Amino acid sequence: MTTTDPADLADRVADGELRIHELEDHADYDTAAEARRLLVERETGADLEAVADYTFDAEQANNTAIENMVGAAQVPMGVAGPVPVDGSAAEGDYYLPLATTEGALVASINRGLSTIRSVGGATARVTKNGMTRAPVFRVDGVAEASEVVEWVADNVDRLREAAESTTSHGELLDVEPYVVGDSVYLRFAYDTKDAMGMNMATIATGEACELVEAETPADLVALSGNLCSDKKPAAINAVEGRGRSVTADVLIPGDVVEDRLHTTPEAIAEANTRKNLTGSAKAGSLGFNAHAANVVAAAFLATGQDEAQVVEGANAITTMDARENEDGTTDLYASVSLASLEVGTVGGGTKLPTQAEALDILGLRGGGDPAGSNADALAEIIAVGALAGELSLLAALSSRHLASAHEDLGR
Amino acid sequence: MTTTDPADLADRVADGELRIHELEDHADYDTAAEARRLLVERETGADLEAVADYTFDAEQANNTAIENMVGAAQVPMGVAGPVPVDGSAAEGDYYLPLATTEGALVASINRGLSTIRSVGGATARVTKNGMTRAPVFRVDGVAEASEVVEWVADNVDRLREAAESTTSHGELLDVEPYVVGDSVYLRFAYDTKDAMGMNMATIATGEACELVEAETPADLVALSGNLCSDKKPAAINAVEGRGRSVTADVLIPGDVVEDRLHTTPEAIAEANTRKNLTGSAKAGSLGFNAHAANVVAAAFLATGQDEAQVVEGANAITTMDARENEDGTTDLYASVSLASLEVGTVGGGTKLPTQAEALDILGLRGGGDPAGSNADALAEIIAVGALAGELSLLAALSSRHLASAHEDLGR
Amino acid sequence: MTTTDPADLADRVADGELRIHELEDHADYDTAAEARRLLVERETGADLEAVADYTFDAEQANNTAIENMVGAAQVPMGVAGPVPVDGSAAEGDYYLPLATTEGALVASINRGLSTIRSVGGATARVTKNGMTRAPVFRVDGVAEASEVVEWVADNVDRLREAAESTTSHGELLDVEPYVVGDSVYLRFAYDTKDAMGMNMATIATGEACELVEAETPADLVALSGNLCSDKKPAAINAVEGRGRSVTADVLIPGDVVEDRLHTTPEAIAEANTRKNLTGSAKAGSLGFNAHAANVVAAAFLATGQDEAQVVEGANAITTMDARENEDGTTDLYASVSLASLEVGTVGGGTKLPTQAEALDILGLRGGGDPAGSNADALAEIIAVGALAGELSLLAALSSRHLASAHEDLGR
Amino acid sequence: MTTTDPADLADRVADGELRIHELEDHADYDTAAEARRLLVERETGADLEAVADYTFDAEQANNTAIENMVGAAQVPMGVAGPVPVDGSAAEGDYYLPLATTEGALVASINRGLSTIRSVGGATARVTKNGMTRAPVFRVDGVAEASEVVEWVADNVDRLREAAESTTSHGELLDVEPYVVGDSVYLRFAYDTKDAMGMNMATIATGEACELVEAETPADLVALSGNLCSDKKPAAINAVEGRGRSVTADVLIPGDVVEDRLHTTPEAIAEANTRKNLTGSAKAGSLGFNAHAANVVAAAFLATGQDEAQVVEGANAITTMDARENEDGTTDLYASVSLASLEVGTVGGGTKLPTQAEALDILGLRGGGDPAGSNADALAEIIAVGALAGELSLLAALSSRHLASAHEDLGR
Repeated sequence: MTTTDPADLADRVADGELRIHELEDHADYDTAAEARRLLVERETGADLEAVADYTFDAEQANNTAIENMVGAAQVPMGVAGPVPVDGSAAEGDYYLPLATTEGALVASINRGLSTIRSVGGATARVTKNGMTRAPVFRVDGVAEASEVVEWVADNVDRLREAAESTTSHGELLDVEPYVVGDSVYLRFAYDTKDAMGMNMATIATGEACELVEAETPADLVALSGNLCSDKKPAAINAVEGRGRSVTADVLIPGDVVEDRLHTTPEAIAEANTRKNLTGSAKAGSLGFNAHAANVVAAAFLATGQDEAQVVEGANAITTMDARENEDGTTDLYASVSLASLEVGTVGGGTKLPTQAEALDILGLRGGGDPAGSNADALAEIIAVGALAGELSLLAALSSRHLASAHEDLGR
Repeated sequence: MTTTDPADLADRVADGELRIHELEDHADYDTAAEARRLLVERETGADLEAVADYTFDAEQANNTAIENMVGAAQVPMGVAGPVPVDGSAAEGDYYLPLATTEGALVASINRGLSTIRSVGGATARVTKNGMTRAPVFRVDGVAEASEVVEWVADNVDRLREAAESTTSHGELLDVEPYVVGDSVYLRFAYDTKDAMGMNMATIATGEACELVEAETPADLVALSGNLCSDKKPAAINAVEGRGRSVTADVLIPGDVVEDRLHTTPEAIAEANTRKNLTGSAKAGSLGFNAHAANVVAAAFLATGQDEAQVVEGANAITTMDARENEDGTTDLYASVSLASLEVGTVGGGTKLPTQAEALDILGLRGGGDPAGSNADALAEIIAVGALAGELSLLAALSSRHLASAHEDLGR
Repeated sequence: MTTTDPADLADRVADGELRIHELEDHADYDTAAEARRLLVERETGADLEAVADYTFDAEQANNTAIENMVGAAQVPMGVAGPVPVDGSAAEGDYYLPLATTEGALVASINRGLSTIRSVGGATARVTKNGMTRAPVFRVDGVAEASEVVEWVADNVDRLREAAESTTSHGELLDVEPYVVGDSVYLRFAYDTKDAMGMNMATIATGEACELVEAETPADLVALSGNLCSDKKPAAINAVEGRGRSVTADVLIPGDVVEDRLHTTPEAIAEANTRKNLTGSAKAGSLGFNAHAANVVAAAFLATGQDEAQVVEGANAITTMDARENEDGTTDLYASVSLASLEVGTVGGGTKLPTQAEALDILGLRGGGDPAGSNADALAEIIAVGALAGELSLLAALSSRHLASAHEDLGR
Repeated sequence: MTTTDPADLADRVADGELRIHELEDHADYDTAAEARRLLVERETGADLEAVADYTFDAEQANNTAIENMVGAAQVPMGVAGPVPVDGSAAEGDYYLPLATTEGALVASINRGLSTIRSVGGATARVTKNGMTRAPVFRVDGVAEASEVVEWVADNVDRLREAAESTTSHGELLDVEPYVVGDSVYLRFAYDTKDAMGMNMATIATGEACELVEAETPADLVALSGNLCSDKKPAAINAVEGRGRSVTADVLIPGDVVEDRLHTTPEAIAEANTRKNLTGSAKAGSLGFNAHAANVVAAAFLATGQDEAQVVEGANAITTMDARENEDGTTDLYASVSLASLEVGTVGGGTKLPTQAEALDILGLRGGGDPAGSNADALAEIIAVGALAGELSLLAALSSRHLASAHEDLGR
C-alpha cells in the first residue's frame, strides 16, 4: 500500500524497502522532501527546521533543479547600486542583487558602484559570444585524424544543419578541430541567445557527433573532451572566451578617487600592477584581478546562474591606469575584462522564485529580443559590478584598510 | 524624527534624505530590509515576495554576512548518500548535503556515492593544510629585495610571534619569499584549524607586515599581492596547495562498474585519459577533472563556505585506471585530488541556520578538536563527493548518456 | 687614416676612437672580427683561438646573422637514423642531423628511430600552419575597442591587401581580435610557406597596422603585443598553434618493445601517464612530454632554426597507449603532438654553410614547392625525431636506466 | 679485418656489416666521423665539407657531448658590452659572448648594454638556487600515499645521506612531496655549486629512491615524474624556481632614455604593461617578457649550456616603471627576473674549446669557489644581458622600429 505519511515513508527507506531517491514516486513532492528530512534527521541527529522552510514549488524544483530534495539553503541577499550602465544591451540604472555570506562584500561593491555613479556610470560591451562543447573522438592515428579534420572543414554546413536541428534558438557559429595523437577534439561554438546554453550546446553537439561518426572513421569517446572547457580553469576559455566575453570600464577624476576612495589614481595603479598583473604573473594565474570571483559568485547566486561556472568567471583581467590630463590633474582609468562569463536569463535556476525576482530587479527575467539582449545585458551589468569590486578592494588595499575593515566587522 | 515605517523609510531614501546603506541606522534589521525591498520594488517594478521570505535572523546576517539586505536567495537542497568514508578525520557514513539549481547533478552524485557504498566506501586523506596570505612590498631594487629576503629568513620566529599575537588558534607554518624586480612577495601559510581562515590569515599577516616595515626598507603596497592566491585560478595553489589538499580514492571491481555504471573500467579509463588528462592538457587547464567544481559548489553552498572559492576547488586532478587482477578480472581504480579546498566549520556562512543544519547532517557544525578535525573531515567528505561525481559523469560519457540524461529532464 | 691592421684597430677601440660595433666600417669582415678578438683577449685575458676558426663567410654572417662578430661557436653534430617517414610532405628515409652538447642524447634518439625503423617507420602530419604576429593598440576605452573589433571584422580584405603588399610569398590567413580594457590585440596569422616567417609576418603586420591606425581611433603601442606569442611559453600557442602544428605516431608490437626497448607497452604507458600527463598536470605545465625540447633544440641548431623558439617547440603532448589485440598480444601506440613548431628551410640561419649542409642531409635546403612543402617536411621529420626521443627516454625510465646511462658516460 | 679507411668503413655500414653507431669501435674518432660523413653523403647527396671542419677533439666530444658524430655546426659568435655588473657573485665589467643566427640580436643587446653602461651598470642578484629532480612512485592508494609522505618528512636526514653519498659537491636542500591519487612525487632540490647539476641531481635522487623503495611500500615508476620540471614550460619552475632564480635591474634617467633609446620612460613603461604584462596575461603565458629567450639562447650556446633548457629560461618577468623624481624629471626603473635559469661553468658543453673560450671571456671557466660563485656570476651576467635585450626591444617597439630594423638588415 502506498502511504503519504512522511514518517512511514522514512521508515520504509530506513528498512530498505524504498531507496532514498524513490520517495517522489510514493508521495507528493513536499511530502517526499519531508520524509527525506525525517530520515536524515533520525540518522544524523540533525534538526532540519530551517532547511524545511522553502518558498519555491517543490515539484518544479524537482523537475528542473534538484533531486533527493530536503528543502532549501537560504543565502542572504542584498543590493548594490543603483549604477548607470552604458552597454551594448544594458542601458539605464541598475540595482545589482547579490547573494553572499561574506560580510563586507556588498558594502565594498556598493562603495565602488557609488563611486562609478558619481562620475555618470560605467561603459560595458560584450565583445564576443559563444557557448562551446568539445567532444573527443578516437581515431586510428594521425593520418586518420588529418582526414577527419579535413572532412570537418569541408562539411561545416552539414554539421550546422545537424546541430541546429535540435534547437529552435541556437546557432552554430564555429567548429574548431584540435589533434593530439589519436584523439580529435572538435570545439563547437554556439550563439545560445538568452540561455546560458550549456545543455542546448550539448544536445546539438550530440547530434553533430552522430554525423561525424557516420561519415568518418572517428569514434566518439566522450561528448565533452575538456576543450569546451566547462567548470575548469582553462586557458582556452581565458584566451578564446566562453559564454560572453565582456569588458566594463570607467574614467574617474583624481579628486573623486581621493574623496570617495581615500587614495590616489597612482596608488591604485601601483597596487594593480604589483598585485593583479605582476603578482598573478608570478603565481602562474589565469586570474589577473583582485576578486572578480566574489562579484560573479554573488550575482550568479542571486540570479540563478550555475555556481560552478564561477570558475571561468574568474578568468578576468583588471587594468588600472593613472592618466595625466593637460591641466596637470590625473584620472584613474579602470577596467575589468571577463573572458568567459556564462550567463542566461531563461532556463536553469532562473525560474526559481527568488532568482526570478532578482532578475526582475534588473528587468531581465526571461527572454529578451531574439538576439539574446537580456543575457548580454546581464553580462554587462555583472561586469560593472566586478569593476566596482575591483575599484573598492584595490582602494582599500592601497590605503591598507583590508585587515581593519574585516576586524571592524568583528570576524 | 526617526520612523520605523518601512514605506516612510523607502520614501526618505528615494528623496535623498537617507542613503540606502543607512537604513539599519534608523530601524530594526527586518524593517530596514523591508524598506529596502519597497524602494527597489518601486524603482524597478519587481515584486520581491519570495525574497522577503527568509528564516535567518536579520541582525545576525547583517553583522556577519550581508549589507544592504533585502532578504534571501533560496536554493534547493538535496542529499546524496549515505557513503562510508575512511578518512584521517572523517570516519563513518555520511549524507552529503548539496544545494544547487542544476538538474541531474544530485542524482548523478548519488549514483556515484551509491556505487562507492556498494564496495564498502571510499578512502580520503588530507595531505597538506595551510591557509595563505601573500602581501606585496615595494623595495628600491633587487639589492634591497635580496636583503629583505635574507632578513625574513633570519627572523621567522619574530614574524611568527607578531602574526600569532592576533589569533588564539592560528599557527604560522611558513613564510616563503618571491622576488620580481622591485617587488617582494611573502607568502605566509597558517594552520587555521576548523576555520577556513582567510580573515585570520589576513589579520595575522597584517601584523607581521608591520614588523617587516619597521625592520627592513620594504614598504607594503598591498596586504594581498595575489601569490596567496585567493579566488583566482592559479598554478601556485594547484602546485603548493591552499586550505586543504585532499585526495579520495576507491577501487571498484569490474562487475560492479558494469552493473551499476553500465560501462567498463577500460572505457572509463579511456574517457578519463582522453578528456581529463589529454583534453585538459591541450586546453591549457589547471583542472584535470570532469566536473569537480559542481560538487564543490553545491557542497559549499549547502554548508556555508565561500562560493567564490569554488574557483580554487576546481584545481583538481582525476585519475582512472583499469587494474588487471591475477584472475583475469579488471578493477577500476578511481581518485580525485583537490589541491586547494578551502573549508571551515566555524565562522563565515557556517553560522546561518540552513547552513548550520547542513553541517549538522554531517555532524560537523562548529569546532572539532583543537587540531581542526572538523574542517579536515569536511574536506575529506567533499572529496569523496567529488570522486562520486567524477565516476558518475565519466560513466555517463563513456556510455554516451550525457545529452540524453539532460533531455529526459526536459531542459 | 684607415688601417686594416687588426692590432691597430683594437688599439683604437681601446682608446675610445672607435666603438666596438664600428670595426666593420674600417676593415674587411674577417679583419674586423680579428681586431675584436684581439681587443677582447687583451681586456679579458681569454685566448680565442678556437673561436677564430670559422668556415662561414664573415660578410654574409654579418649581413644576416650576427653583429660584433668574433668568430664561431662549434657544437658537435651527429646523425640519427635513417628513419622512414610517411608524411604529408616528408616521404622516404631520413637521417636526422642533430647538434648538441648533451652526451647520450643522439644515442637515445637513434635508439628510438631504430625501433621505429624496425616497424616500417612513423607517420606524421602537419595539421595546422600559421605564423602569427599580434600588435597591441591603445584605444580610449571599451566602447572604442568594440568599434575597432567591428571595423576589423568588416575590413579583413583591406587588411589582407595591405599585409600582402609587403611580401611575394606570404598569405594572410586570419585576423583575430582580443580586447582587454583599453587595449586591443589583433593576432594576424600567415602562411609563410618555406620560411619560418617571423620577419615576413612582422613586416606585413606593420603595414596592416598603418591601415588600422588610419581608419580607426586605435593607436599602435607595440607591433608585438605578446599574443603572437614569440619565444615565450604561452597557452595561446599550445592551444591555437604557431608555425606548424604537427603530430607523429607509430604502432609498435609488444615483442619489438621488449626486444629493442627492454620494457613493455604497459610499463611505457604507465610511465607516460604518471609522468607526462599527471605529473605535468600537477606541475602546471604546458609541456606534457618527457624531453621533446631536446630533439627540437638539437635539430634546430643543426638546421639553422631560431634556438629561442625551442621555447614553443616544448609545447608538446606525448601519448602512449597499450592497445590489446584480438590475439592477446599488446601493441604500443605512441604519438607526440607539437603545437607550435616554427621552422623554415629558407632565410635566417639556414643559409650558413654547416646549417645548409644539414638541410642537404634531409634534402630540404631552400624553397620547395610554392605550398611550402620543405618546411612542412622538416616539421614532420623533427616530430618523428621527437617521437623517437620520447620512446627511448620513457623506455629508459620505465626500466630505470636513466641515471646509470649517464653514469656510464662518465659525467 | 679491421680497417681504418673511412670509405671502407662507410661501405661496411652500407652493406649492413656494421651499424652506424659502431664506427668508433673500428677506427679512431676522426676517422669514424669521416666514414659517417661519407656514408651520409653517399646516401643523401649532401656535401658535408663545412660540417667536417671542426676544431674540438673528436674523442672528447664523443665521450661527453655527442654520438654518431659527423662534425660540427658552426654558429656565428659576437660579443656585446662591456657592461659593469654589481652582483652577489659577478663584480666588474663583462663582455657577453653570444652565439646566434638571428640578425640584429647582438646589436640590439649591445645597444641595451651600452645604455646600461652609460649609467654605471646594472645590479643583479641570485635570490634562490636549487637544481631539482622529482621521481614518481606508485602506491596502492591515498592511504599509502599519506604514509609515504609522512615517512619522507620523518626521514629527510637519511634521504640526504643517501643522496649525498653519490656526490662530492652536491648538497640536498629540500624534499617536497606531492600526492595525486596513487602517485607520489618527491621533488628533491640540490645545491649543485658550479655545475648545472642535472646529472648530479639525477644520480643522487636515484640513490635516495632506493631508500624510499626499501623502507616504504612505494614503487618507483620513473626517476623523473615531470615535477622537476626539466625542459618543459611549467609553472612549478616559474613559481618555485629551478637552477638559479636571478633578477637584474637598473635605473635610467629620462634624458638617457631619450638620448640613447629614442623614447621615453613613460612610453617604455606603457609598452611593457600592455605587451609584457597584460598581453602575456591574455595569452595564458608563463613568459611575461619581450624576448628574454633570445639572450638566454645565445648566451647558452656561446658558453656551452644546455640549449633545451632555454625553455625554462623563458619563464621571466620584465617590469618597467616610470619613476617621478622630486625635480619633475622621470627615471625608468627596469628589471627582469628569471625564475629558472639553469647554468654551470663546469661539466657538459662547457669543456668544448669554443665554449670554454667564451667562458674565459667572462673569466668564469671551470669551478669558482666552493659555494658555486662562478655559476652564480654567469647567471647574474646573463640576467643583465636579458635586461639589456628587454630595454632595447621595448624601446624599438615603443618607437616603432622593429619592422624597419629588420627591413634594413635586408631579410
